[in-house]
Amino acid sequence: MADAGGREFFTTRTVADAARGFRPRRRTQVETVPLAEALRRVPARPVTAPHALPGFARSTVDGYAIRAADTYGVSEGLPGYLAVTGAVAMGAPPAVTVAPGAAVAMPTGGAIPPGADAVVMIEYTAEAMPGTIEVVRPAAPGEGIVRADEDAREGQEIIPGGRVLRPQDLAMLAAAGVTSVSVHARPVVTIFSTGDEVVAPGTAVLRPGQVRDATASALAALVADAGGVPVLGGIVPDDPGALEKALRAALPASDVLVISAGSSVGARDETANAVARLGPPGIWCHGLAIKPGKPTLLAECGSGRDEALGVPLIGLPGNPRSALVVFRLIGMPLVRLVGGCVTAPPEPSARARLIRDLPSATGRLDVIQVQVAGGVATPLFGASALLSPLTAADGYIVIPEEATGLDAGTEVSVTLYA
Amino acid sequence: MADAGGREFFTTRTVADAARGFRPRRRTQVETVPLAEALRRVPARPVTAPHALPGFARSTVDGYAIRAADTYGVSEGLPGYLAVTGAVAMGAPPAVTVAPGAAVAMPTGGAIPPGADAVVMIEYTAEAMPGTIEVVRPAAPGEGIVRADEDAREGQEIIPGGRVLRPQDLAMLAAAGVTSVSVHARPVVTIFSTGDEVVAPGTAVLRPGQVRDATASALAALVADAGGVPVLGGIVPDDPGALEKALRAALPASDVLVISAGSSVGARDETANAVARLGPPGIWCHGLAIKPGKPTLLAECGSGRDEALGVPLIGLPGNPRSALVVFRLIGMPLVRLVGGCVTAPPEPSARARLIRDLPSATGRLDVIQVQVAGGVATPLFGASALLSPLTAADGYIVIPEEATGLDAGTEVSVTLYA
Repeated sequence: MADAGGREFFTTRTVADAARGFRPRRRTQVETVPLAEALRRVPARPVTAPHALPGFARSTVDGYAIRAADTYGVSEGLPGYLAVTGAVAMGAPPAVTVAPGAAVAMPTGGAIPPGADAVVMIEYTAEAMPGTIEVVRPAAPGEGIVRADEDAREGQEIIPGGRVLRPQDLAMLAAAGVTSVSVHARPVVTIFSTGDEVVAPGTAVLRPGQVRDATASALAALVADAGGVPVLGGIVPDDPGALEKALRAALPASDVLVISAGSSVGARDETANAVARLGPPGIWCHGLAIKPGKPTLLAECGSGRDEALGVPLIGLPGNPRSALVVFRLIGMPLVRLVGGCVTAPPEPSARARLIRDLPSATGRLDVIQVQVAGGVATPLFGASALLSPLTAADGYIVIPEEATGLDAGTEVSVTLYA
Repeated sequence: MADAGGREFFTTRTVADAARGFRPRRRTQVETVPLAEALRRVPARPVTAPHALPGFARSTVDGYAIRAADTYGVSEGLPGYLAVTGAVAMGAPPAVTVAPGAAVAMPTGGAIPPGADAVVMIEYTAEAMPGTIEVVRPAAPGEGIVRADEDAREGQEIIPGGRVLRPQDLAMLAAAGVTSVSVHARPVVTIFSTGDEVVAPGTAVLRPGQVRDATASALAALVADAGGVPVLGGIVPDDPGALEKALRAALPASDVLVISAGSSVGARDETANAVARLGPPGIWCHGLAIKPGKPTLLAECGSGRDEALGVPLIGLPGNPRSALVVFRLIGMPLVRLVGGCVTAPPEPSARARLIRDLPSATGRLDVIQVQVAGGVATPLFGASALLSPLTAADGYIVIPEEATGLDAGTEVSVTLYA
């Protein structure tokens, strides 16, 4: 992993390469969860309707179930007259049949009685005498009715696999009587922080040189946002053996491993060495053409003979801001992939005009934090060791590999932080 | 609540009116949560830095801490020579001072030793002889250094109140040693389903006329998405006293009440009557100029003498799709408001061109479900009793009150379902 001069040997790849080429085969197991816990979970396979939905023909209006032909030609000036022969109650099977010349009172959502092929709205009727209504507008067959299989036919796919369940999907599942769903288990993501300078957030007083672990808390949040279960593996000192030992201990219970690595070149070398010793397939890249975030490491470890058992690993840059930028772009899609999510959920975004020129090197993807107000995007700069540009930002702009920068006034798409 | 003819007396308002005028004063209490549980919670007040951040001047590069003046005028052809008088270790206070003509080896993130005012990158140095480096590029004062208060000054606001905590906000709090946060309690939202036709989702076999409760599961999910705690109050039959009794029992433990009301006119009257009997301030509107969703009821109940204790209530239309559309537009902002969130989080959206004309009545807000592919938005129609247009949709278009419809080819903003 190191050349003769002691510097790390970078196998630098582009972010686009990584998105295409770094596709670990590991997927979490399938488990069954009740509907009440299924929001944002990822169904392992499509769900089909166990029976036609709604299952019976329903009225969509308050009115009268009739035979449409009985109303042909009626008008305000020449109403039709129908005998009210009964009423349908909500939730009950209809007890009457609609004969020619008859009408049955219907509430919205009631079951259409046999013989009827339309429901005329109450607004187009009036009581002519007790037991008789006049109808002043003709109804077409099917009017005012939802068919028994109009929401879904028996066996029809009602929910796709591989996409998170949204609130309305839960409504459809409940309507179909599907009260539990086979979903991918949430990927367990173990997060290690490394560095002799890093101390726990609860450390009240810092010695000069010490910093609190800012990255782990935010990474845990991003893991949760991507549908994973974050496990904080703690802070590992810059010691050649300690990281390897910690990673080995975490491997069996982890679906993804994340290291926020030491920021110095030496610390990065140590991380790469420890990862390499975990076994094949090994390091996929050490160095990503992204700013901030170049010293990113991607690997798969400890698969033994079965590639699908390998645990994907991301070594993140030591600067918290770089680490969070890279994890958002590379880590969250990886957690989703391992969790069986094949359709990425949409992200909030806004169009805005750049207030100033942004230079960028070709071949490198740049991520620029911005504030957005009144349709104008203002870049926030500062050393990547600083967190404040990230907390002050409303979102970020991506300058793709092929661009050589963006001119002031360019309309850009800002991905907004939710 | 009912006129002589037995029909409900609609106090119809526009959605814009409701957003402006229906602003209940109730807010949840403030509670303290640990950082690990603070994601998406709403701080009750701004958080300030307890001390300067990072707290000491840090190197942003691997290199040597120097006095910048010692490098003025150096170049590749005419290097400067500095004596290496020590090294700074990660996480440790610097043990050396940088004298004129001296250099101290620095890791990225290390504490700048006294006397130094710049760090020259290792790439611009070479070992000239043991204990001496040559420097081939001049450094400016401050170069390679993050100041002790560059991320935040002591007492500076680092996190605003009233906006949900994002992953990077947790990083800043951890960096500042703030391990717990005062946040608004999650609003408790009790959800009732009404209607004699409604049965639990677990009901395996339906009688004709029965439907499973689809709305409650989806409303619970929307409540959770808005930061609330959903409580399912169960299914209440269409009985004048039963709903009032259920609402009264839920009032003391609820911050918001939600009723997915019966769909018939009679059932809607009963809902309004039950709500009116809960006490002042009472019904704010019964009828909203929105399609779907007209029979929406907004109220505040049971405040006694203190308006801030009133419990806001939403009576939703009986059709599941109408109920979900209205709850997304009216209910979720209400839950956020009660939960102290004054800055709405951004929602995913996309620009797309309408594939066909969409008619709309002036004075009414229309919500149209659409699929989006290749920049084209295709409206999905169907009776509002159907759920499938909602599960098939990628998002929705809002046609505002003042519009009289949209022409085919119009570029519209589609709010995407996440």
